Amino acid sequence: MSAARPLITLTTDFGLSDFYVPAMKAVLVRGCPDCRLIDITHQVPPQDVLCGAITLERAVDGFPPGTVHLAVIDPGVGTKRRILLAEVNRQYVICPDNGLITWAWRRHPEPRPRVYELTWRPKKLPSHTFHGRDIMAPAAALVASRASDGVLDELGRRISDPILLDLSPATPKAHCGRIIHIDHFGNATTNIPVETLRAVRPKSVTVNQLALGRLRRTYWDVPPGKPLALVGSSGLLEVAVRDGSAASQLQLKVGDEIRLS
Amino acid sequence: MSAARPLITLTTDFGLSDFYVPAMKAVLVRGCPDCRLIDITHQVPPQDVLCGAITLERAVDGFPPGTVHLAVIDPGVGTKRRILLAEVNRQYVICPDNGLITWAWRRHPEPRPRVYELTWRPKKLPSHTFHGRDIMAPAAALVASRASDGVLDELGRRISDPILLDLSPATPKAHCGRIIHIDHFGNATTNIPVETLRAVRPKSVTVNQLALGRLRRTYWDVPPGKPLALVGSSGLLEVAVRDGSAASQLQLKVGDEIRLS
Amino acid sequence: MSAARPLITLTTDFGLSDFYVPAMKAVLVRGCPDCRLIDITHQVPPQDVLCGAITLERAVDGFPPGTVHLAVIDPGVGTKRRILLAEVNRQYVICPDNGLITWAWRRHPEPRPRVYELTWRPKKLPSHTFHGRDIMAPAAALVASRASDGVLDELGRRISDPILLDLSPATPKAHCGRIIHIDHFGNATTNIPVETLRAVRPKSVTVNQLALGRLRRTYWDVPPGKPLALVGSSGLLEVAVRDGSAASQLQLKVGDEIRLS
Repeated sequence: MSAARPLITLTTDFGLSDFYVPAMKAVLVRGCPDCRLIDITHQVPPQDVLCGAITLERAVDGFPPGTVHLAVIDPGVGTKRRILLAEVNRQYVICPDNGLITWAWRRHPEPRPRVYELTWRPKKLPSHTFHGRDIMAPAAALVASRASDGVLDELGRRISDPILLDLSPATPKAHCGRIIHIDHFGNATTNIPVETLRAVRPKSVTVNQLALGRLRRTYWDVPPGKPLALVGSSGLLEVAVRDGSAASQLQLKVGDEIRLS
Repeated sequence: MSAARPLITLTTDFGLSDFYVPAMKAVLVRGCPDCRLIDITHQVPPQDVLCGAITLERAVDGFPPGTVHLAVIDPGVGTKRRILLAEVNRQYVICPDNGLITWAWRRHPEPRPRVYELTWRPKKLPSHTFHGRDIMAPAAALVASRASDGVLDELGRRISDPILLDLSPATPKAHCGRIIHIDHFGNATTNIPVETLRAVRPKSVTVNQLALGRLRRTYWDVPPGKPLALVGSSGLLEVAVRDGSAASQLQLKVGDEIRLS
Repeated sequence: MSAARPLITLTTDFGLSDFYVPAMKAVLVRGCPDCRLIDITHQVPPQDVLCGAITLERAVDGFPPGTVHLAVIDPGVGTKRRILLAEVNRQYVICPDNGLITWAWRRHPEPRPRVYELTWRPKKLPSHTFHGRDIMAPAAALVASRASDGVLDELGRRISDPILLDLSPATPKAHCGRIIHIDHFGNATTNIPVETLRAVRPKSVTVNQLALGRLRRTYWDVPPGKPLALVGSSGLLEVAVRDGSAASQLQLKVGDEIRLS
């Protein structure tokens, strides 16, 4: 019973100083009074769909089946861009069709994701600038209230061509990958999954001409202030500096190449 | 049943790095174990009552009847300034009597707001520096626990002279207004409501000598990087820059004048 | 019934922009679906155990008996550092054994705290970089689910030598203390409790050669912009500037000495 309380998570670029996030929460608790709300983050850099996509995948990875994920990084609001309703890793995602779904989609191929264009619209005419509050949050509340196989077919139209970013997990053949995210501590996450590392068994990892040596197990395998490569908590190769910030010390940025040799 | 779980929102200038916000939450869950807590924002600039007033109105606009809004921007703590208990838009507000109530009061005249001085005090002697935790939060928990028409008369004394800021919705006669809030994206909200725009039907909008042309419907009605005026999601005239920050690009600040012609 | 819903608080240095905090929350709601989650702060400066210890004490002071506090500032993750499970002020704390427990421990000697090394481990092999998610959060969910005297003995091994920082409440004999925390408003908290002030009855307070005069009752006892010393809301001597930031105006930092005379 308690266990069945619907879970809704929120991922946005709205920041925490305005009323935008609580405006969506007001709609969610009106539409699904029983729901539990969990903030993923609201500090995705404004309009940074790639960063939002990386973060959303983490949510889809961590939460239990049936969770509804509302993700609103939506520079195209007010245009004819579609709104997606997807089922990924036995959970639901509602987000604009601008690539946000990419990383969740590609990292969770089983069971096969299903994606719909949200065709349902609320009775009240939505604003032209805030579909997160006026269309997506009401839809999320609806999905959370009666999550079941049928709900997607009721609210949307099955599609097969969601917009996807140029972002895939690195395969063993490539022997290289790139930085896809920099975190709060300055650690740099790459698109190289642990499965690829197991297949390649690299003797050494290089980033921006800098050799990081072999894969380490923990930060403490190198002296303080030294850089290292290790498998991070998301199952991806990560570049870090012990007790420091790899991003600032090694001047890393999203897109930089990582080589395995 | 679940729907009746009491809702309490929090709006403060406490920031998110100290214990001040959770200190109030600890009091709220002790006093009303059933309540649902929703953060509006804790990033109102320190002691910025105007910004707090704009934000609080949004909360009073968005949440359902019976919601209790606790708003603590309280530079006068420890003085004899009154504490208000108000009923606005069928919801409850508890805040210091320093103007915080202004915008909610003026934007929601129906049903007619009622305002009380909170005369109730907790048994435990309050600190001299944190009435948010020691007086207002216990009162909010009390109101949330037994929200009903009687509760205001029990806890307070009806008054008719709350402190109000010099801040009103622009009327059609004025043909001008001013910027009242700058948001996270750099959009500038004005005090000109959509009803006034409908009455004036302006051909052009000007801010700081810069002509923005006619009212637009959505950000995408102008090319990237260009400024525009449109009705924002709060039903007020807004100045924005497509895919950019109007505040920094046009050097806008709170108080700047907007002209309709 | 509702009152018995388990409370879990979170204190970390993870920031709010990454998935680390919601990753722990996902584990907590999986393990204890009924729990109520309250964020203390996630903005402890990276790896600042002292700041974390000050904050954690506030949580242990404010929340009701039975609350579970999960505190993760964990630079030693992946080493053999122990994980603590403690009972302090009739509440539970789970944190790395690196000094985080110090201030809660020393400020709440009654009833006598009990401390255990967490020996319980989840079935799933933990990562080497995120024990907050993989060991401490599952343990917190377990404690919250069946909080009772027995649970500590089941999950851990009683110890008597937790790591403690060099940080104690100032006693009346010393006539001095030091700044232990700077808050969001620039107020400086010291380690001098109100009980010590009552015993010493200082005529004057001095910080960094600057005489602040006698103890004040409230910020309004001095003119705007002037510094003062008063008892803050945590029951400790505090240095503040009325309507300003003491930290920046008086160039205060953690560790600075305060003298009573």
